[in-house]
Amino acid sequence: MTDHFRLTATQAQSKFRDGSLTVEDYAESLLSRISARDPATHAWAYLDRELVLARARELDQTPPEKRGPLHGVAVGVKDVILTKDMPTQHNSPIYEDDAPKLDAASVMTLRANGSLIFGKTTTTEFAATSVGPSYTGPQTANPHDPSRTAGGSSSGSGAAVGDMQVPIGLGTQTVGSTIRPGSFNGIYAMKPTWNSISREGQKLYSLIFDTLGLYSRDVDDLKLLLDAFQIVDDEPEEVFQIEGSKFALLTLPTPEWPEPGTGTAAALEKGAEILRAYGAEVEEITLGEEFKQMYKYHLEVLSGDGRVAFLPDYYVAKEKMHHSLIDHVENKEKYTRKSQIRAFDELAAMRPKMDALADKYAAVIAPSALDEAPVGHSNTGSAAFCGPWTAMHMPVVNVPGFQGENGLPIGLSVVSSRYRDQHLLRVCKKVGEIFEAEGGWERDK
Amino acid sequence: MTDHFRLTATQAQSKFRDGSLTVEDYAESLLSRISARDPATHAWAYLDRELVLARARELDQTPPEKRGPLHGVAVGVKDVILTKDMPTQHNSPIYEDDAPKLDAASVMTLRANGSLIFGKTTTTEFAATSVGPSYTGPQTANPHDPSRTAGGSSSGSGAAVGDMQVPIGLGTQTVGSTIRPGSFNGIYAMKPTWNSISREGQKLYSLIFDTLGLYSRDVDDLKLLLDAFQIVDDEPEEVFQIEGSKFALLTLPTPEWPEPGTGTAAALEKGAEILRAYGAEVEEITLGEEFKQMYKYHLEVLSGDGRVAFLPDYYVAKEKMHHSLIDHVENKEKYTRKSQIRAFDELAAMRPKMDALADKYAAVIAPSALDEAPVGHSNTGSAAFCGPWTAMHMPVVNVPGFQGENGLPIGLSVVSSRYRDQHLLRVCKKVGEIFEAEGGWERDK
Repeated sequence: MTDHFRLTATQAQSKFRDGSLTVEDYAESLLSRISARDPATHAWAYLDRELVLARARELDQTPPEKRGPLHGVAVGVKDVILTKDMPTQHNSPIYEDDAPKLDAASVMTLRANGSLIFGKTTTTEFAATSVGPSYTGPQTANPHDPSRTAGGSSSGSGAAVGDMQVPIGLGTQTVGSTIRPGSFNGIYAMKPTWNSISREGQKLYSLIFDTLGLYSRDVDDLKLLLDAFQIVDDEPEEVFQIEGSKFALLTLPTPEWPEPGTGTAAALEKGAEILRAYGAEVEEITLGEEFKQMYKYHLEVLSGDGRVAFLPDYYVAKEKMHHSLIDHVENKEKYTRKSQIRAFDELAAMRPKMDALADKYAAVIAPSALDEAPVGHSNTGSAAFCGPWTAMHMPVVNVPGFQGENGLPIGLSVVSSRYRDQHLLRVCKKVGEIFEAEGGWERDK
Repeated sequence: MTDHFRLTATQAQSKFRDGSLTVEDYAESLLSRISARDPATHAWAYLDRELVLARARELDQTPPEKRGPLHGVAVGVKDVILTKDMPTQHNSPIYEDDAPKLDAASVMTLRANGSLIFGKTTTTEFAATSVGPSYTGPQTANPHDPSRTAGGSSSGSGAAVGDMQVPIGLGTQTVGSTIRPGSFNGIYAMKPTWNSISREGQKLYSLIFDTLGLYSRDVDDLKLLLDAFQIVDDEPEEVFQIEGSKFALLTLPTPEWPEPGTGTAAALEKGAEILRAYGAEVEEITLGEEFKQMYKYHLEVLSGDGRVAFLPDYYVAKEKMHHSLIDHVENKEKYTRKSQIRAFDELAAMRPKMDALADKYAAVIAPSALDEAPVGHSNTGSAAFCGPWTAMHMPVVNVPGFQGENGLPIGLSVVSSRYRDQHLLRVCKKVGEIFEAEGGWERDK
């Protein structure tokens, strides 16, 4: 048994290129890892080994000059994103036998660039609840401690990438569904600028918040993906140096929210310390009065959006839906249209202000989650600290490297203004190197 | 041969209820109408007669107490909206053999309420070009003069409803793709408040502009649909009276745009005259300086959105795409991210201002199109006058009743602030009665 499963996507590609590894052998290694580990992690909602191997062989047969930039890159796809050759079940009994013959836009782009679409990873119901129980299968566990949650709603992609079952995972984020599992599983998680990757074919919760998320164990792998999705900044690709740069440290991104837990508080402190040690200036900031209502507005818009998004399923099989989704449709909170519009407009007005704030720094450093992954699988943790960057449409990367009181990984969010995704990755490349080296948490490699 | 095809949806339902008509007989009548007329109008991209009749018989077999509020309502679905039992081809050769087994959210809701999903209606390529040529079939013609366009991009739904081939049509609007065909075909066309109906499963062009559109020949039919989609205002459903109400007349909704043509100018004048004759106050307004850049911003955001939306198709089969879509992906206009964000934010800032303006009136009356439908089929007409209400997310109804120099129908847009859709329908019910009675254009009934 080989250890190919340990390779990042970029490392695997280099072996495909020099002929020392075939995509098929690589896929076999990932499948073996999954066989060994899935009984503990439960990260997969659908996996067809024969299909994976058949596609891997097709990729091996592609002549080198016709191989795409993502040749052989294995991707786990959150099970709310359509795949034409695999069912998409949304962790909902309504979609149990679903097999639409359609690829989501993201999957279409990945495939067209040579990716090996590996299988479907677990999700909470419609990626729209924060509770873990699955109707149809076992509960996804944190690979670093199976008694704990892998987070949500992108539970399976987070766990599978964290556990080296696959190098790349697709998630989604409407509040904190990509970044939180990133922190809990000790991996890089990126929520790019809103609408910089097409969300077509990805289950709809909120048009204005839903964003495709990306998982990897390495910044170079994220760069591969961003390039395939043709995400480009205005600014040229200049080398970023920690020394002489200036960061903002935001310990409480959501005003009116409880303080971060001890693990996250320590990570923030240590992160700042490390950055300063490498010659960066770190300025502690708070969010002004004008951002105070942000999370309230976020949840209010979300409720109005859920009212619309889940109406069709409600008509078809209300009795099979989680009560929180029914509450959306029935407008249990009795939000008025007037307050829903105000929330929508106020968030829109905050975006340029938050960009302006972020643009004063190389990046903003903020917590990704309240603390390390909580014990149990029925609660996937709080999304609150991730909310601001979703509501503001800003790109954010969870950078791993720290650990909590129980030795579980903790990451920090590194954030920039809209459409500075490539800049953000260059920052995270350097920040990740020193956080991973000196933050205190060590990944099994 | 019966004339059941002439019935509005509401009229047909009343006959289903009293047992004087079966859904099957009604469907037969619509199919006969289509057989007789489609060689001239070319409104259908896909129509399976046996499937229609089978579903009609199923509906007839549904016991009365289990029938939905849209029982037997026949709907033509624009061919960019997914249907699980019919292909969705987007008028693109890339999707020629496409048959995803999935209903769009809108279709799911309609079906769950008892609708008879009739067939797929023609569209311009991905509902994203304004040029008519179809790759795969004939060109959709205006039923009132087959030498002229039916408009676009919702060409087939507009023509089919205008020609009494089906009482209800679904369209989409990103700039003016629902309202313009409404005016050209002499029918009611409604673009509800943005995101008040789920756009899931409808081809994506722009997240922030794309809106599902509704066609009918009667306001009561629109009301049926709005209720099924659970679109509710904050305000109670009070009777609206023309007498004593106040309207705004906006002859030039897009500042910096050429004046309306003679037909539309005359319709605006006559519309105001009729309203005044019935006791309404009509105040001529213009849009202030703060709205001046609206259309420029609209097109700029659209270009950035198209860049993202069409990337997957571009990867798969660039050579099969219209050059305007390739230009989006390749950012031919060289828009910067900075200007794209500014356009997005500026439009957001205009929305509450435009709501406040509209809220001073029962509704705003504005042109729906430059003039009557132009001659030829390769150009589907200008969408510019429809743009503001799309960009501002406001509900708008095209009310027919007027005619141009060549006897073709012309409608006017009746607009209200966001989430006053039901109010707007009540206004249009009364306005439509007098515009249709005294506007000068008479529909074959």
